[in-house]
Amino acid sequence: MAKVLIIGAGGVGSVAAHKCAQVPEVFSEIVLASRSVDKCEAIRDSVKQRTGREIEVAQVDAGQKSELVALLQKVKPAMVLHLALPYQDLTIMEACLECGVDYLDTANYESEDNPCFDYSRQWPFDESYRNKGIMGLLGSGFDPGVTNVFCAYAAKHYFDEIHYIDILDANGGDHGYPFATNFNPEINIREVTARGRYWENGQWVETEPMEKKWVFDFPGIGPKDAYLLYHEELESLVKNIKGLKRIRFWMTFSEQYLKHLEVLGNVGMTSIEPVMFEGREIVPLQFLKALLPDPASLGPRTKGKTCIGNIMEGVKDGKPRKIYIYNNCDHEECYREVGSQAVSYTTGVPAMIGAMLMVNGVWRKPGIYNMEQLDPDPFMEQLNQHGLPWQVKEL
Amino acid sequence: MAKVLIIGAGGVGSVAAHKCAQVPEVFSEIVLASRSVDKCEAIRDSVKQRTGREIEVAQVDAGQKSELVALLQKVKPAMVLHLALPYQDLTIMEACLECGVDYLDTANYESEDNPCFDYSRQWPFDESYRNKGIMGLLGSGFDPGVTNVFCAYAAKHYFDEIHYIDILDANGGDHGYPFATNFNPEINIREVTARGRYWENGQWVETEPMEKKWVFDFPGIGPKDAYLLYHEELESLVKNIKGLKRIRFWMTFSEQYLKHLEVLGNVGMTSIEPVMFEGREIVPLQFLKALLPDPASLGPRTKGKTCIGNIMEGVKDGKPRKIYIYNNCDHEECYREVGSQAVSYTTGVPAMIGAMLMVNGVWRKPGIYNMEQLDPDPFMEQLNQHGLPWQVKEL
Repeated sequence: MAKVLIIGAGGVGSVAAHKCAQVPEVFSEIVLASRSVDKCEAIRDSVKQRTGREIEVAQVDAGQKSELVALLQKVKPAMVLHLALPYQDLTIMEACLECGVDYLDTANYESEDNPCFDYSRQWPFDESYRNKGIMGLLGSGFDPGVTNVFCAYAAKHYFDEIHYIDILDANGGDHGYPFATNFNPEINIREVTARGRYWENGQWVETEPMEKKWVFDFPGIGPKDAYLLYHEELESLVKNIKGLKRIRFWMTFSEQYLKHLEVLGNVGMTSIEPVMFEGREIVPLQFLKALLPDPASLGPRTKGKTCIGNIMEGVKDGKPRKIYIYNNCDHEECYREVGSQAVSYTTGVPAMIGAMLMVNGVWRKPGIYNMEQLDPDPFMEQLNQHGLPWQVKEL
Repeated sequence: MAKVLIIGAGGVGSVAAHKCAQVPEVFSEIVLASRSVDKCEAIRDSVKQRTGREIEVAQVDAGQKSELVALLQKVKPAMVLHLALPYQDLTIMEACLECGVDYLDTANYESEDNPCFDYSRQWPFDESYRNKGIMGLLGSGFDPGVTNVFCAYAAKHYFDEIHYIDILDANGGDHGYPFATNFNPEINIREVTARGRYWENGQWVETEPMEKKWVFDFPGIGPKDAYLLYHEELESLVKNIKGLKRIRFWMTFSEQYLKHLEVLGNVGMTSIEPVMFEGREIVPLQFLKALLPDPASLGPRTKGKTCIGNIMEGVKDGKPRKIYIYNNCDHEECYREVGSQAVSYTTGVPAMIGAMLMVNGVWRKPGIYNMEQLDPDPFMEQLNQHGLPWQVKEL
């Protein structure tokens, strides 16, 4: 039984608040804080309506350590679930350290000026967290998060050594608009314009943006174009999975989606450089955002499934083996359950499970950890209990 | 020897001013007027530099009949070449009528509120122009204009009766940008979103926008996708070409161009409905225009050719016959000669030739005329003299 503080009132924060509220025997008190307290209040009302539970709300600027410390001192939570922006990882980690409160996030730190995946600013907290006797769990979403646990689970039960890992993330959802984005369009655009990167034979290999495509037949969805991207879980998995020869990450983008991004880029609509228009500066990307459907409006109208999982190849008892562990998650079922679609659901549920395993002591130990460093079995069991059941296929 | 007034200082007005200046034995004095006198001055300087001739400039709002009348009374031209916007056809025709001055245009009247091709507001001037003893020549550009003359020429020399006419307009120019438009993007967008229309067996047949495509191998360019559109010359040709069974108009649009228009339409960037953004109304299409390359900047960088012509099929001396009359025009050569590329050149040169045949009396007679109602031979001869040579192919 513990009191937890959730920071962030976007889609993921909302899912986590609903899912924590579904487990009162673990999460006895829930406080939800964000810069916009009205967003917290809307989530509070939905949680009340769907679960009958009351949660508290609070206002905080997660970029300001002093505000965070004041809130932590007031709320006195057992732990913080940081589900706001990755730019805020460090200030929240510092506030938790100062107040002696456990920490969990779902995405690694990026600076706003030069965003890129990189754990080098978060891993060094390990010593101070150990000294303080607190725990920091990094990347407890789906990818990173569940995909790391899939690796640990496979390493524990299916392989003596894993040589090849391909993580495949497909969103087969259809919102019915010709073009819209689930998350911040800036992040979407950055994903497809960034150079790809994977790890092979002990070194990182770079690719052109969208250079490598794999048409993969996703269970529950069908064939989709998946493109090789760099993704943060690769950085910890190459350290923690022994014997690895290659690891890659793939994400699906539809032709339609890429066509729209290409054209909008061509005409300058995705630029963040202001242009003068009718006597004042306008940032084209901001104007584009104003034209596009509000990401929050997509939830009620998105049909179809996500499919995220790992194909892993290696040896067991001297014989080659290849397995695929994956989850299918249905957008409409998620929306019915918690009022958010699957992209938020698949991140918010693992955040709740990670927090549960920390507050009930199953996973808790001082220091900074990535998901694959902890025993996968209890996490895998909870996934089946809380809406993200998984399958293992021998290939 | 005559004094002429050119109204309009866009690309076509500029070409006409340069070409008139090249024929001092016909156009002894040239006045160029527009709402923006600085545009007129830039053209005046270019004409001076390229031909050594001085032209006069003047300021006029062509939408205001009183301003036009005052200008005509001051300038006292033999005729007006109206090369401004089609919205202004009626005010200029009325001013010419009041002042007893001949009139020529290159595009038929459209109202700004409900733009569509339609001669019904211009043809009724016929009686008043006859009574006043003045002439109005409608559509003396390339299409309409030269394409109408090609029909009259074919009817005079190649056929006893023409049954089928296909007018094909290809722009094989490449400006090197992923997306840009030669003319006003609103007009470009209207072209590809309007329903198609052609005439067959005595009646008009409507098509969906871009429903009918013809991959035609254009001389000097190669195969291009041409789409059936409605175009104004069809309206007069079905009246004036006897025995006609079908007439259609086709224009090329590249896949790349259509893809950009589709995406920009999908996200709402081509809308003329204002949206609220940062506290004030912004018209998306206006903002898009501000992002796109200035159409005037395309001239110096456009390579390749246009190809516009007619395929005509009918009978001569009891035998079936099929011919193709067309012109190729090279963007870079046009730019070198007059500082505009071929899209403006192919419209401005026929305007000058039409004016020449009016002021030297060869075509002049009181009333309102479309091009195919006049003797095609002198016009065809002048095309060869003034930069738009044509070819006839027997098919």
